[in-house]
Amino acid sequence: MIDFKTSITVPKIDWAPHLAALSAAQMNGWTTIQPPDPRLEDYAAQIKKNAEVLVVIGIGGSFLGAKALLDAIPRASKTEVIFAGTSLSPLEMSQKLAELGDRDFCINVISKSGGTLETNLAFDVFYQKLHQKYGTDASQRVYATTGRSGALFQLASDNHWSWLEIPDNVGGRYSVLTSVGLLPLAVGGVNITELLNGAKNYAADISKALDYAAFRIHLHSQGYLAEALATFEPELHFLAEWWKQLFGESEGKNHLGLLPTSLTYSTDLHSLGQFIQEGNPKAFETFLEIAPTASNIKIQGVKGLEGKDLATVNAAALRATVAAHATVRPIAEIQLPSRTAADFGAFLYFCFIAASMSAFALGLNPFNQPGVEVYKSNLQKLLGLA
Amino acid sequence: MIDFKTSITVPKIDWAPHLAALSAAQMNGWTTIQPPDPRLEDYAAQIKKNAEVLVVIGIGGSFLGAKALLDAIPRASKTEVIFAGTSLSPLEMSQKLAELGDRDFCINVISKSGGTLETNLAFDVFYQKLHQKYGTDASQRVYATTGRSGALFQLASDNHWSWLEIPDNVGGRYSVLTSVGLLPLAVGGVNITELLNGAKNYAADISKALDYAAFRIHLHSQGYLAEALATFEPELHFLAEWWKQLFGESEGKNHLGLLPTSLTYSTDLHSLGQFIQEGNPKAFETFLEIAPTASNIKIQGVKGLEGKDLATVNAAALRATVAAHATVRPIAEIQLPSRTAADFGAFLYFCFIAASMSAFALGLNPFNQPGVEVYKSNLQKLLGLA
Repeated sequence: MIDFKTSITVPKIDWAPHLAALSAAQMNGWTTIQPPDPRLEDYAAQIKKNAEVLVVIGIGGSFLGAKALLDAIPRASKTEVIFAGTSLSPLEMSQKLAELGDRDFCINVISKSGGTLETNLAFDVFYQKLHQKYGTDASQRVYATTGRSGALFQLASDNHWSWLEIPDNVGGRYSVLTSVGLLPLAVGGVNITELLNGAKNYAADISKALDYAAFRIHLHSQGYLAEALATFEPELHFLAEWWKQLFGESEGKNHLGLLPTSLTYSTDLHSLGQFIQEGNPKAFETFLEIAPTASNIKIQGVKGLEGKDLATVNAAALRATVAAHATVRPIAEIQLPSRTAADFGAFLYFCFIAASMSAFALGLNPFNQPGVEVYKSNLQKLLGLA
Repeated sequence: MIDFKTSITVPKIDWAPHLAALSAAQMNGWTTIQPPDPRLEDYAAQIKKNAEVLVVIGIGGSFLGAKALLDAIPRASKTEVIFAGTSLSPLEMSQKLAELGDRDFCINVISKSGGTLETNLAFDVFYQKLHQKYGTDASQRVYATTGRSGALFQLASDNHWSWLEIPDNVGGRYSVLTSVGLLPLAVGGVNITELLNGAKNYAADISKALDYAAFRIHLHSQGYLAEALATFEPELHFLAEWWKQLFGESEGKNHLGLLPTSLTYSTDLHSLGQFIQEGNPKAFETFLEIAPTASNIKIQGVKGLEGKDLATVNAAALRATVAAHATVRPIAEIQLPSRTAADFGAFLYFCFIAASMSAFALGLNPFNQPGVEVYKSNLQKLLGLA
């Protein structure tokens, strides 16, 4: 069970009209958790059998969710999952190619439309490598996750690639529990049945997610500009990145919204701790707290801490930080009981509800992203493509 | 030569009184670039000879600068540099230990006072390993970088460790060009002479750094809360983290300052691009731009881009983004001509000046961090140490 607490009193919001708006929205396909595509487990088994590495090619909502959960959930898998096409940097591309090396691999290319530049460029580079290595058998090593129309769907059909569908009524940032996230997660050893069950069970009582949305919207109305998601675990870095996209794209429109930013403690106590304690007060902090699991790293020679577990010290640092920051800013705590797939599944759904309800409460459509087009059209012009 | 441009007209500031305040400040030791400690090159040579890995143990200003430059500057070194003690996470500690494995290693422990909890805990763990591996010879593999008094200085003296001094008049976030940064950088293969010369040359004409400070302070006075440092290169992630500490700790006090945050494009165009284009306008964006170097990754099968270099596409994405965002927010551009040590040395000094002058212009002391104490004292109490 996810718990949620705040340091301030939050006025009640009547969620009924916003929940009705969600029910009526075209892009609400994520609200009912669907079982995985029947082909998905077969594809995952094929990949695990034939490859040491799965190269997932996608950007934004087509990589953040799977990357976040592969980092966050303890798991065992012989097949490594590498994410490529997450930027246009040639340095990064070279590193990903070097990381792959000469190992056997398959590609999972993910794009709803097939028109994403980063994805198409990275696929071009990695498909060259796949073709060099496997010749005409290369096609059997490509898995396309895409919509039922568009350039990538066409390409997959023409080349007889395996494919999985991205439902029309689920947007990128809400897609981690569709084939977009589930294939890389299954290959990487996450129990996707537990993950989906966790989300489904959470859907039965969304009250804490609504409390979180009410907290955010109250502070938005008080002139707060930014929300920082704070964790005490570097392994949650990409979960924070996923959260940033979900909230930033859902409500960052019409000159509204909270700038989503993240803090990884205790690292950032030694860099941004000063600002949080004494700087501009118009940013608030949401702690994502996961019950610690015992560690086998024991302290020997640090006075007063001899024999203690490092996890105990990290947990104490969390309590000390919450206490210190709550004296100067509004704070909230989202508490997860464990690092299991089920608990993270619940957390994803919690965030989906909180983000979409926040946007509806601000009078916005959570499911569009009109602002992304300006950059895209500038780039097309600069590259001579439009 | 660093160039600096803004999309808006910025009122002039009379910097004379603030420059006088800097000259008079006790903690301005960084303003005159000192040559490296004569022992430093010897120590670097010893480490490179005796170790496959240098484990640097430090947090905040004791690791961010060196980590940032090792990632940003192209270099060749047989000795790998690993940073540990950068959080209290037991997961991270286990990963660092696994990354080190059974390879030969030395430790560089960095703390001005010797009283930093993360540093002491990680040193405890890695020193156990060092002692298991090398017995009584372990002492010869420890290099302490610390102040001329305090617990770590005492420990280094008692155990006859090699040591390098952190000058009293240089604070952690301004310390990358002292032994704090220079030993790991030298071991990692960065040309520290060029780095220092770059900074020293930049110190002869700081006018662009003052323009940057004036831009920031003008927007601060207009009610802006946050500044995002935007790059197009994931390898600059830790440079942005270094920048966040420098500016956040220098000016985040007395309820003032700009919340420092960072954006890594094109990745974040697909997550935060929407917010930047259409969300709350009270955040502005500073682009850190480095002239692209040609890449050997050529595009084959993407229509309209056949035969193009990936670096060209990334550079076009930068221009497209600057153009798109400048229509909706104030933006600035910091332009570096190359990825050489000299140009990054200049950039560091540029940032030191901009951060300290921003703080002075806000009526703040750039060189203290009183807010960090609240968390520290809470933690001491929770751990039963105070």
